[in-house]
Amino acid sequence: MKYAIIGTGAIGGYYGGKLAHSGQEVHFLLHSDYEYAKEHGLQVDSCDGSFHLDHVNAYNDTTLMPKADVVLVCLKTINNFTLSTLLPPLLKDDTVVVLIQNGIGVEADVEAKFPGIQLVAGLAFICSGKTEPGRVNHQCYGQINFGNYSCRDAARMQALLDDFNGAGIKAGQVEYLEARWKKAVWNMPFNGMTVALNTQTDLLLKNPDTRQLIYDQMMEVIGAARHLGVTSLDASFADLMIKMTDEMTPYSPSMKLDYDFHRPMEIYYLYSRPITIAREAGFAMPKLAMLEAELKFLSELNKKG
Amino acid sequence: MKYAIIGTGAIGGYYGGKLAHSGQEVHFLLHSDYEYAKEHGLQVDSCDGSFHLDHVNAYNDTTLMPKADVVLVCLKTINNFTLSTLLPPLLKDDTVVVLIQNGIGVEADVEAKFPGIQLVAGLAFICSGKTEPGRVNHQCYGQINFGNYSCRDAARMQALLDDFNGAGIKAGQVEYLEARWKKAVWNMPFNGMTVALNTQTDLLLKNPDTRQLIYDQMMEVIGAARHLGVTSLDASFADLMIKMTDEMTPYSPSMKLDYDFHRPMEIYYLYSRPITIAREAGFAMPKLAMLEAELKFLSELNKKG
Repeated sequence: MKYAIIGTGAIGGYYGGKLAHSGQEVHFLLHSDYEYAKEHGLQVDSCDGSFHLDHVNAYNDTTLMPKADVVLVCLKTINNFTLSTLLPPLLKDDTVVVLIQNGIGVEADVEAKFPGIQLVAGLAFICSGKTEPGRVNHQCYGQINFGNYSCRDAARMQALLDDFNGAGIKAGQVEYLEARWKKAVWNMPFNGMTVALNTQTDLLLKNPDTRQLIYDQMMEVIGAARHLGVTSLDASFADLMIKMTDEMTPYSPSMKLDYDFHRPMEIYYLYSRPITIAREAGFAMPKLAMLEAELKFLSELNKKG
Repeated sequence: MKYAIIGTGAIGGYYGGKLAHSGQEVHFLLHSDYEYAKEHGLQVDSCDGSFHLDHVNAYNDTTLMPKADVVLVCLKTINNFTLSTLLPPLLKDDTVVVLIQNGIGVEADVEAKFPGIQLVAGLAFICSGKTEPGRVNHQCYGQINFGNYSCRDAARMQALLDDFNGAGIKAGQVEYLEARWKKAVWNMPFNGMTVALNTQTDLLLKNPDTRQLIYDQMMEVIGAARHLGVTSLDASFADLMIKMTDEMTPYSPSMKLDYDFHRPMEIYYLYSRPITIAREAGFAMPKLAMLEAELKFLSELNKKG
């Protein structure tokens, strides 16, 4: 299968790099480090074994890329508006587009722009960064779960799983809606609260008041998910997420890093969209709605600062 | 009537000073600037006319003070635990104690410690500070409303009003529970949100998301008050408070000043207590409960910092 990677950053560089390293045909769309990668290739420093790709199929324009069997969209959702122009040159009738992105509602919005498109959600559990041109720093984890949103081609879906696993990436298949909301149970409280209180995961859990608040916010997400039909989720998952985070080293989620580096935050798909979806279905998330407002306020000041 | 002032700070120094200046017998309990005031008296710099009291009845120990007809408690509620020892030496059978303090539940707690005590709530609308020993800086406003909590002596209540008005302070009488909750409609959103987002009143109202959040929080207070029987309060009061704040100069409420100067914040009576009272009566205030948790988190760090 031909793979196209839209957004060769910490995520796209890692997964695309692993696939290419395993012998798959991978075409990379790059932005700021296009020239560098074209000349020097791509270096992946990884806890699972580092490697260098001497040559990568590097592009700075999707109209110059071949049509793909699988497109991996690895952009921050902030930039999803660019998909209207970036995606069409890559699409065949049977192309499957995998959105390896955070949040709720991304698939619905892409589908609205491209009716009939075959979409898969990619839920990555990975700590990875990119600090230099052409160099990905993969610190730990790496597992990815795929949730089928609108892929009609079971063989293609299986091939995707096989290619990832063949590249040494632990890849599994999960139920789409459940997986998106499950990930939100951790993401919605911790991403925003570390920004709102300028802190890290460990201190939020050490203080009994914010520990309870994080739990309450997780229960809002679980309540919304159950209201929307994800009945497999219950309070035990909040307990599990809290316990898991207790055992993690102090952590700054991606939104906190975006805030610290004065980059735009993914408020829309991480907060506004799920809160609106739940509200329209008759379920209120007051504490997360308050967090959304605080983040929007801080985001404005963070731009100006 | 003999007046005793417990806490000769920005509030006690102003109201006590005005009463003394008008010829009332006023006895002041002082702490850090006891020696200074004993020697140099008290200076009140005021937008309504400055004055100096050459001699003040200054004490640093209530056991040395005469028993009082009226005690004005002008402490931050943080220090209300000291009333157990400070109050008894001042009390006669008919003493009226006026709590010029912020928050909800202060009267109930003092009554529990002193069963049968005659209590009046003092709701001060004043901008006043104390930055030097023996010197009060009264910037603007100054009106005080008295809400009768458990004063059985109508004549004493009237004398209190007359003495204040006679001293040039605009004083009125209001319904106790309504007045306490009305003040909370402004206090609960603005005190905490200026701390949580490190900002002032004007910016919270300029941003449409936090403007809506402030309104939602006001409606939580109004909802709680109505649930507790204050049916005169409705949404129009939130509109009025927002409009009034729009017209104010950018303002840092007392809790923001406490936070900025690393002093303890009045979280208990401004948040924990009213939220608990409402919850126990079956009314939830989720956004203010979240704010309470954020403030407790920030308060811990503010101590250590």
